[in-house]
Amino acid sequence: MAAEDTSKVSEAYPMNGGDGPNSYAKNSTYQRAVVVVAKELLNKAIVEKLDKDIKLSFNTFHIADLGCSVGPNTFYSVENILEAVQSKYRIQGKNSQIPEFQVFFNDHSRNDFNMLFKSLPQNRGYFAVGVPGSFHGRVFPSASIHIAHSSYAIQWLSRVPEAVVDRDSSAWNKGRIHYSNSTDEVIRAHETQYNKDMECFLHSRAQEIVHGGLMILMIPGRPDGTPHSHSLANITLQFLGLCLKDMARKGVVSEDKVDSFNIPMYTMSPQELKAAIERNGCFSIEIMSDLPHALVSDTISISELLASHLRAGLEGIVKQQFGEEILDELFRLYRKKCEENASIFESETAVNFLVVLRRTAD
Amino acid sequence: MAAEDTSKVSEAYPMNGGDGPNSYAKNSTYQRAVVVVAKELLNKAIVEKLDKDIKLSFNTFHIADLGCSVGPNTFYSVENILEAVQSKYRIQGKNSQIPEFQVFFNDHSRNDFNMLFKSLPQNRGYFAVGVPGSFHGRVFPSASIHIAHSSYAIQWLSRVPEAVVDRDSSAWNKGRIHYSNSTDEVIRAHETQYNKDMECFLHSRAQEIVHGGLMILMIPGRPDGTPHSHSLANITLQFLGLCLKDMARKGVVSEDKVDSFNIPMYTMSPQELKAAIERNGCFSIEIMSDLPHALVSDTISISELLASHLRAGLEGIVKQQFGEEILDELFRLYRKKCEENASIFESETAVNFLVVLRRTAD
Repeated sequence: MAAEDTSKVSEAYPMNGGDGPNSYAKNSTYQRAVVVVAKELLNKAIVEKLDKDIKLSFNTFHIADLGCSVGPNTFYSVENILEAVQSKYRIQGKNSQIPEFQVFFNDHSRNDFNMLFKSLPQNRGYFAVGVPGSFHGRVFPSASIHIAHSSYAIQWLSRVPEAVVDRDSSAWNKGRIHYSNSTDEVIRAHETQYNKDMECFLHSRAQEIVHGGLMILMIPGRPDGTPHSHSLANITLQFLGLCLKDMARKGVVSEDKVDSFNIPMYTMSPQELKAAIERNGCFSIEIMSDLPHALVSDTISISELLASHLRAGLEGIVKQQFGEEILDELFRLYRKKCEENASIFESETAVNFLVVLRRTAD
Repeated sequence: MAAEDTSKVSEAYPMNGGDGPNSYAKNSTYQRAVVVVAKELLNKAIVEKLDKDIKLSFNTFHIADLGCSVGPNTFYSVENILEAVQSKYRIQGKNSQIPEFQVFFNDHSRNDFNMLFKSLPQNRGYFAVGVPGSFHGRVFPSASIHIAHSSYAIQWLSRVPEAVVDRDSSAWNKGRIHYSNSTDEVIRAHETQYNKDMECFLHSRAQEIVHGGLMILMIPGRPDGTPHSHSLANITLQFLGLCLKDMARKGVVSEDKVDSFNIPMYTMSPQELKAAIERNGCFSIEIMSDLPHALVSDTISISELLASHLRAGLEGIVKQQFGEEILDELFRLYRKKCEENASIFESETAVNFLVVLRRTAD
């Protein structure tokens, strides 16, 4: 893929499809653990914050999962939301009015929807549909969604900022694959892109979510005040860049390809997100809180976990730039790099945060 | 695949996915031609028969295509319906009230939805979603669909009747792959299955379609009073059976596999469908008429057309029983068989019919 192309994609890179050993389906344990710790918070949010007289469409409650990937995490999240809505009806003494549910699984049109559909839970309590398209634009009719949910997805930008892959620009991100350990210009270009994308995201959702409906976001972020370079989510990406540079030095990949490769992922702080929500003006912030750290498993080392987690999420974009043949070696090196730097993962700061927004009346 | 399995699938065989030379996408010219000739009838039906005060869900009009396959025909049909609904609003002087449209593309969960989503028209005037699941059961929430459409799909039964693949049954369909040239017992087993399936189909749609909404069906059928053995749609399947028997004689495929292979497709007559609709009782028949014969192209012979058409629709089910390696040879033989019997295609009777049903109030 030519360098120029990387900056032009507005349809981003799908997670690793299928159900093979490196698939997203089998390597999203961490995201799953976050869903589990969030369950209680989510239940409370829905019971307390969802408009109790929310207007239904022919007695059907519409739930959307934005950036759903191929499962199975999306199914756990949806199940949790559905149970919370049902329990809200019960608490209100409206057992007999519990609606039917229709769940809209959304992701890029290049997502593996065939895999998603094949793995839908057999005895699900909802009608399932797949919605192809970028959540940076409109994907649903006006006022048609009661709860929109998105977990570990809105950190993806819609594209790599143009200047970052332009060799003649002062914001050219030479020799790095992420903005977080780069120059101020590169960081600014990403901040600008983030602001644009978040504006589009919130504007679209404001049109799609019914008044009194909720948007629930789980986001891997950086704590307020932490520089981009010190955020743990970013450091894991920087490590991948170092491994690619090592491979370029050995002649396994071309230096040019490393120079033109950028991962369009932005690690936002709660403050930045808050500012974007306020600029949009259509949502009230009902909850914005850190998620407790997820205990994944002690049978797997942190390096192993990070390598499988990163591979599942980034294999698509890496393959497109460097070809399939480098994948095994790259993620082997990556795991080694993590092992060598294990102490960083204890000292640097990470935060996962949960945000619950309510669509206010215009 | 073992003989026993054939009778147990309730999820049937998807059309040939992808966009290769034998794909459904590239070999559904005939179905396309039917859609084109039906356009005017369809427009008239919607303008005249759709309830003018139909209740919308948040100002969104919901169209479903049942058995959509991978496109492109489904996109033409949907576009035609959408334009007809818009023109109805204009005729009523309700230009400013033209709703948003959401289109539900439904097919079995094994349909190639990835391909469908990639080939969605760029500038479509609707929000698109994919709905996995058999239309013999519920796939949508109650009263959520305004127009349901299905073209060349409801001739598929949900399964091969059990007795037909049971060697100990008097309805065992030995040596044939279709009921139409078989014994009375085999025909009766298929009639029974058709009646059950149509009951489930109509019952599900009665729950899903809004009062005053329409169901539009295009069906390859046999004229009233024509025996199954003489219907053209059936003869094309009988020819495929003869080719398989030839291959069995030559030892290319096993006779056992031919004996246990059955194509679960039922060619209904208008009268049979009418009876099923009356038994269901939730729909009024607004239109039931023959579709004019579709002129496909004179640059392609009828045998070529039939072979490509049949391959696109049946490759999946044939491959599952006999393996991929026989496909080229089988459809070459099939084309030859059609050429040798070209006169039959002029003398025997075929009918495509259009049915427009209206969901009546309970």
